[in-house]
Amino acid sequence: MILEKNSKLIMIGDSITDTGRVRPVGEGRNALGNGYVNLVNAFLYAFYPELNIRVINMGISGNTSRDLRERWQNDVLDLQPDYVSVMIGVNDVWRQFDLPQIPEYHVYVNEYRDNLEYIIKQTKDKVKQMIIIAPFFIEINHEDRMRALLLEYQQICKELAGKYDLIFVDCQQEFDHVLNYHHSCFLAWDRVHPDTTGHLLIAKAFLNAIGFSWK
Amino acid sequence: MILEKNSKLIMIGDSITDTGRVRPVGEGRNALGNGYVNLVNAFLYAFYPELNIRVINMGISGNTSRDLRERWQNDVLDLQPDYVSVMIGVNDVWRQFDLPQIPEYHVYVNEYRDNLEYIIKQTKDKVKQMIIIAPFFIEINHEDRMRALLLEYQQICKELAGKYDLIFVDCQQEFDHVLNYHHSCFLAWDRVHPDTTGHLLIAKAFLNAIGFSWK
Amino acid sequence: MILEKNSKLIMIGDSITDTGRVRPVGEGRNALGNGYVNLVNAFLYAFYPELNIRVINMGISGNTSRDLRERWQNDVLDLQPDYVSVMIGVNDVWRQFDLPQIPEYHVYVNEYRDNLEYIIKQTKDKVKQMIIIAPFFIEINHEDRMRALLLEYQQICKELAGKYDLIFVDCQQEFDHVLNYHHSCFLAWDRVHPDTTGHLLIAKAFLNAIGFSWK
Amino acid sequence: MILEKNSKLIMIGDSITDTGRVRPVGEGRNALGNGYVNLVNAFLYAFYPELNIRVINMGISGNTSRDLRERWQNDVLDLQPDYVSVMIGVNDVWRQFDLPQIPEYHVYVNEYRDNLEYIIKQTKDKVKQMIIIAPFFIEINHEDRMRALLLEYQQICKELAGKYDLIFVDCQQEFDHVLNYHHSCFLAWDRVHPDTTGHLLIAKAFLNAIGFSWK
Amino acid sequence: MILEKNSKLIMIGDSITDTGRVRPVGEGRNALGNGYVNLVNAFLYAFYPELNIRVINMGISGNTSRDLRERWQNDVLDLQPDYVSVMIGVNDVWRQFDLPQIPEYHVYVNEYRDNLEYIIKQTKDKVKQMIIIAPFFIEINHEDRMRALLLEYQQICKELAGKYDLIFVDCQQEFDHVLNYHHSCFLAWDRVHPDTTGHLLIAKAFLNAIGFSWK
Amino acid sequence: MILEKNSKLIMIGDSITDTGRVRPVGEGRNALGNGYVNLVNAFLYAFYPELNIRVINMGISGNTSRDLRERWQNDVLDLQPDYVSVMIGVNDVWRQFDLPQIPEYHVYVNEYRDNLEYIIKQTKDKVKQMIIIAPFFIEINHEDRMRALLLEYQQICKELAGKYDLIFVDCQQEFDHVLNYHHSCFLAWDRVHPDTTGHLLIAKAFLNAIGFSWK
Amino acid sequence: MILEKNSKLIMIGDSITDTGRVRPVGEGRNALGNGYVNLVNAFLYAFYPELNIRVINMGISGNTSRDLRERWQNDVLDLQPDYVSVMIGVNDVWRQFDLPQIPEYHVYVNEYRDNLEYIIKQTKDKVKQMIIIAPFFIEINHEDRMRALLLEYQQICKELAGKYDLIFVDCQQEFDHVLNYHHSCFLAWDRVHPDTTGHLLIAKAFLNAIGFSWK
Amino acid sequence: MILEKNSKLIMIGDSITDTGRVRPVGEGRNALGNGYVNLVNAFLYAFYPELNIRVINMGISGNTSRDLRERWQNDVLDLQPDYVSVMIGVNDVWRQFDLPQIPEYHVYVNEYRDNLEYIIKQTKDKVKQMIIIAPFFIEINHEDRMRALLLEYQQICKELAGKYDLIFVDCQQEFDHVLNYHHSCFLAWDRVHPDTTGHLLIAKAFLNAIGFSWK
Repeated sequence: MILEKNSKLIMIGDSITDTGRVRPVGEGRNALGNGYVNLVNAFLYAFYPELNIRVINMGISGNTSRDLRERWQNDVLDLQPDYVSVMIGVNDVWRQFDLPQIPEYHVYVNEYRDNLEYIIKQTKDKVKQMIIIAPFFIEINHEDRMRALLLEYQQICKELAGKYDLIFVDCQQEFDHVLNYHHSCFLAWDRVHPDTTGHLLIAKAFLNAIGFSWK
Repeated sequence: MILEKNSKLIMIGDSITDTGRVRPVGEGRNALGNGYVNLVNAFLYAFYPELNIRVINMGISGNTSRDLRERWQNDVLDLQPDYVSVMIGVNDVWRQFDLPQIPEYHVYVNEYRDNLEYIIKQTKDKVKQMIIIAPFFIEINHEDRMRALLLEYQQICKELAGKYDLIFVDCQQEFDHVLNYHHSCFLAWDRVHPDTTGHLLIAKAFLNAIGFSWK
Repeated sequence: MILEKNSKLIMIGDSITDTGRVRPVGEGRNALGNGYVNLVNAFLYAFYPELNIRVINMGISGNTSRDLRERWQNDVLDLQPDYVSVMIGVNDVWRQFDLPQIPEYHVYVNEYRDNLEYIIKQTKDKVKQMIIIAPFFIEINHEDRMRALLLEYQQICKELAGKYDLIFVDCQQEFDHVLNYHHSCFLAWDRVHPDTTGHLLIAKAFLNAIGFSWK
Repeated sequence: MILEKNSKLIMIGDSITDTGRVRPVGEGRNALGNGYVNLVNAFLYAFYPELNIRVINMGISGNTSRDLRERWQNDVLDLQPDYVSVMIGVNDVWRQFDLPQIPEYHVYVNEYRDNLEYIIKQTKDKVKQMIIIAPFFIEINHEDRMRALLLEYQQICKELAGKYDLIFVDCQQEFDHVLNYHHSCFLAWDRVHPDTTGHLLIAKAFLNAIGFSWK
Repeated sequence: MILEKNSKLIMIGDSITDTGRVRPVGEGRNALGNGYVNLVNAFLYAFYPELNIRVINMGISGNTSRDLRERWQNDVLDLQPDYVSVMIGVNDVWRQFDLPQIPEYHVYVNEYRDNLEYIIKQTKDKVKQMIIIAPFFIEINHEDRMRALLLEYQQICKELAGKYDLIFVDCQQEFDHVLNYHHSCFLAWDRVHPDTTGHLLIAKAFLNAIGFSWK
Repeated sequence: MILEKNSKLIMIGDSITDTGRVRPVGEGRNALGNGYVNLVNAFLYAFYPELNIRVINMGISGNTSRDLRERWQNDVLDLQPDYVSVMIGVNDVWRQFDLPQIPEYHVYVNEYRDNLEYIIKQTKDKVKQMIIIAPFFIEINHEDRMRALLLEYQQICKELAGKYDLIFVDCQQEFDHVLNYHHSCFLAWDRVHPDTTGHLLIAKAFLNAIGFSWK
Repeated sequence: MILEKNSKLIMIGDSITDTGRVRPVGEGRNALGNGYVNLVNAFLYAFYPELNIRVINMGISGNTSRDLRERWQNDVLDLQPDYVSVMIGVNDVWRQFDLPQIPEYHVYVNEYRDNLEYIIKQTKDKVKQMIIIAPFFIEINHEDRMRALLLEYQQICKELAGKYDLIFVDCQQEFDHVLNYHHSCFLAWDRVHPDTTGHLLIAKAFLNAIGFSWK
Repeated sequence: MILEKNSKLIMIGDSITDTGRVRPVGEGRNALGNGYVNLVNAFLYAFYPELNIRVINMGISGNTSRDLRERWQNDVLDLQPDYVSVMIGVNDVWRQFDLPQIPEYHVYVNEYRDNLEYIIKQTKDKVKQMIIIAPFFIEINHEDRMRALLLEYQQICKELAGKYDLIFVDCQQEFDHVLNYHHSCFLAWDRVHPDTTGHLLIAKAFLNAIGFSWK
């Protein structure tokens, strides 16, 4: 179990992290949104109350890796976390498909790698551990163009996690397992924003990756 | 051009037809919703003002063919239309995939054929013409299980239209054409509810099928 | 694991069950509220998608055992569940302390036993299994008068579960464990309505009791 | 067809253009309002998806040519469009009739010519093509004082389009055609803000003028 | 002056009378709406406080003569007025022009005469005096088709008032006078619903007709 | 008649003037509130449309003479009116009675004279005419302490109007006349804010004082 | 002290009693409104917690003695109170002054006596004690017509309380004492609905009359 | 009685003081919230109208002693009060229990003493009298950890009041008395925010401490 007693964990990302968290800082009573961050916090207090972990949700809906890079100093480093998790990239890809006519909104794969690597370098030595949660797309069809492109972004997450010795979390395989039994619309009409079932999959993958055993 | 001067056209279906129409009867000022029915009406008055067609939107969000069958007498026949268009079936299929645990919500393919045929028989001789608009799914992947199943429902539409000599409208090919250039999420995040681009495709397919030439 | 594939589970109770569920029947998309019922459903689909369990939330805020007895036929039996869980009693006790001047609102211990036993008898033979979740009070002080009285109601739950061979779930010990580390106001300002941490404790106790292993 | 692939088209004007578009820039999902700009965009993607045109709505309700002149640099030139359409002038005239006591709100015919010519000169050499859509008044009576005055403003549009070799769009004749069959109140109670029927007339006139064939 | 001390005056009609009056009966504090009925009441109490007239507004927006006929017993006769004023007819005509496709909404000239005469006969002998206020259209152009048709309805008002010896009020000439100086859009964008200026014209015409001298 | 064609009249004061007018400047469509300013404007356009007077409501609820003095340059002089009316003072007095414990809110009689005289001197030579409308209290009892004190403020209005040769309007006598027939609560529950009956009394007194004959 | 332990006290009246109480029965948490009933309840629990009195607010805004008589069986007797207090009459009088033109709303002095006596006779023998709180008017001027008339209604309260041996509460003298120091508008702008200061005067008068000593 | 005629009393604290008071300064009509400050004001005007005390509520929900110290100059001293009451500290303690993971929110006992003493020193010589109301916790169980800790803060209040010769108010004993008869949930579900019963206890304790005799 990597989390030390009384330590601080910041979880950052896009709308899948945000899930309605309180502004400007998502911490305290009813402040963590209703997604996987809230579940991780509930898990930690329900089953490890003695750890007294301070969980902070800094997700912002619509964010890409470019947005994270810009607000990293203010929204992560200035808060002096012990642990940081990042899940980013689905919007980097999605905008290429749902707003193809607006190139300013697209974050292509090379910029994505740069942004993520920049963030990692800024953070690595200032925290006890950093966790990279790869973005996912709730679609089982391997021919789908958005899934195929997102796969490249997932690979970058894995590659950079390996290069800098960070914890890597693969949610795609969790979703793919459920998709063997149910159509993607069961988990999310838009294939991006899951309901509690999907958030539980993320929370479980995250917790297991950092050394807790859930499920 | 099949529409006679001063005649009455009822367009019925599910949420894709409804699009926020006024209750109980969707006719008059700002009453037709903001989808293809509204576009059909605008087309008829912009380019054929002399026809003075009375367009009525009777769509209800969430409806299946079972719901249409139940309210057919009240919501269609009692209004004595000259023409009736029906687009139904996507919810019959969708519920099998997004709510697999609730079988009461599923309308399987045989019941669908029964419902649609019942409706046709009730109506055929009481109107000047009936138009069957086949339901569609905004997904180009032929392996997708929901697309594959919906295809069977589309075939029933085509088959019954042929059997009873009704006008048949195929929207799926219109969407498939655009999907050659853009990912499904460009047209609809949930692959079911299109924006104005998609509604224009439906309106065009409908109008061309009934003898107008648009685009 | 007691839950059979494609079976139906109704969970009923008071506001701790209700948690904002959809009316009249709490089932389907975003319909289960945001408490333990929602977590149980998420658990079942995240980790046992092949079971395809239909979870239904029938909780109503403010209910006592007297209310449950009245609506049992309509809200439980008529829906023909395979499994039923009941968590009721905190309002039976609470009203004796927060509204001492209104005796009509109080459900004393004998009536509670009658109501619960009546419900059990009505149901036992019509379902595959029934689960009694004892009500709880988030207070560690054994001298607290409300805790002391609630303990008697918990005992009745245990006793009747034993008598009729039902599954019994004890949440109080789960909460008491966390209360060793944190003050009651950490879990619930009013000591009755927990946040997600508390609901996770309930979900875990329930799932473990019916044969799943969580945490 | 004048629109090149992947090019950017800004459409600017008053409330007839605005129609509830998103601020500060009307582009992207559900951002184009519900008027002719939205219809033009839908047409382009429904029937010419390969063009991938970026349509931007910069209309602001209540604007006169004086307002457009003031915000032209910020709201048009800084966005570097390939094509620009302008429909302005009805408020320049309307205020002279509905608020006769407030001369500051009136933009008389000479100032209108100056404003429009200034805008054209600023833009002409920076874009691939500029389109002038003349303002219109939905009234068939030639004696109406507002229609008579607006006619002078329409003439200035035509004259300047000719002088600078721009595309000119005449909507008045489209409306006049429909007014042969229906009273003005059928198209717009206030004779200024049309419903979808009227917006379709504008979209058609615009699209035909730039080389598409619609209807 | 025709109004006797302590008598009751009911003013009935469509939206021009209604103007937001209180339901079900428009009498008492802040209950008369903000149109001519309110001005008549204010006039009577400001300048003839000793009369203590009970003014009641029974207008309902959208009403035609057909609607008035249906609710006449309940909404007028049952309230036992001493005086009744009626202004009805603009919707009888308007619907023929703004909803030409819905004939059920049209009240043609013969039915209008029947409805009005029926109302008059029902009332004449039960009240001290009845006042017919002819409907008006705020348009000076004599060629306008709606004005031309409404003129026929005005003539019926005048004719029946003469036949049954009722007081007749002509508002059209009041509006026409102002229209010599200002365009119709100054008084009402839709040429039907005036602002306070127009309501003052109606109130003045009414009061002068019943024997008060205002302005 | 003192108002010249095409001239500008600013009416300023407290809540009795404000009556919900539009901010920042109360002029144009539906912008004048629903009190005497609106009635004056309606009178001028209904009966003297050829004058084309621009009426501006600059009242602000709660204002005292101290507030008016502060905003006089911005809210009156900068707008360059031809005529100005002022009705101020009831709050100067009222606060002494309803908030006796907050002396900062009280404007005593000497400051009131100073404020009013300052305003008059600033304005007198810059406008064609200035009108002082004395504040009023809707109470017939001469012993009432608030009425008695307000009388002194009314006297200052009269005295300064005489000294600077301004038009003086006395509303108190209008209200007192009605109060001979009806209790004060008929006109205003709080004896300060009249309904339309009272506003008609003010409008009439104002219009008669400036040379129009109304009623 | 007249109130027996665990007894039930119903307080009924008009808006001064109602003060926003919960419907249909004003009892329990945050259900008593924010007036004198709430203060009486707070007094009883703050200073006599051992009595455990059940206080019920059954006031309805706008009620006259005629309304109370009609709903007395349902709203008082059916609830089987031990004690009942009634404060009614100000609307019986007020409507004669603020709505003089609507005689149906007026309850004249003889009917008031009948209504009150009827209520008393219905109740007297069914309760342990009945308390008559005379209505009041917050005006010190003895010449005021509404105060003068209300005095007659107060006398009837006193007279009937004496005749039937009920407890009588005189609030008018409480208000008159404060009015020696402050103008009526300090206590209530409309002289009818006091703020907490006035409600404290009522609560004190009531409590002292039934044998408690407050202040 | 310590309060001099026409003097100013500021009452400051956290949510128990705030209770919805008006911003930025809580004084005047309906501005004091609905808690003990409002009751104190009502008491003073109901029973000592001749004193004309100006009561100001400057409480802010959520405040700790640290917050008070920061805003003391602006919110208390700059308003130049004659008397100041302070009730602060429950949030200093509560945050240690309900948000144990966020140490920045905790105000430990030494800082509390410093803050309170700082405030006292800043104020003591500038006012006629200062009153320290010790914070309270509505829980009778002496073993409760939050009650035990709050007791230390209460002791500091008492100690500093003694040291600087200020008036000290002990509310805890008032609540404890009622808790002998009723469970804490009767007075406040969260044991911190009382209803009117509790606020009356605070008001009474305060008023008695400053020399008034209430109850």
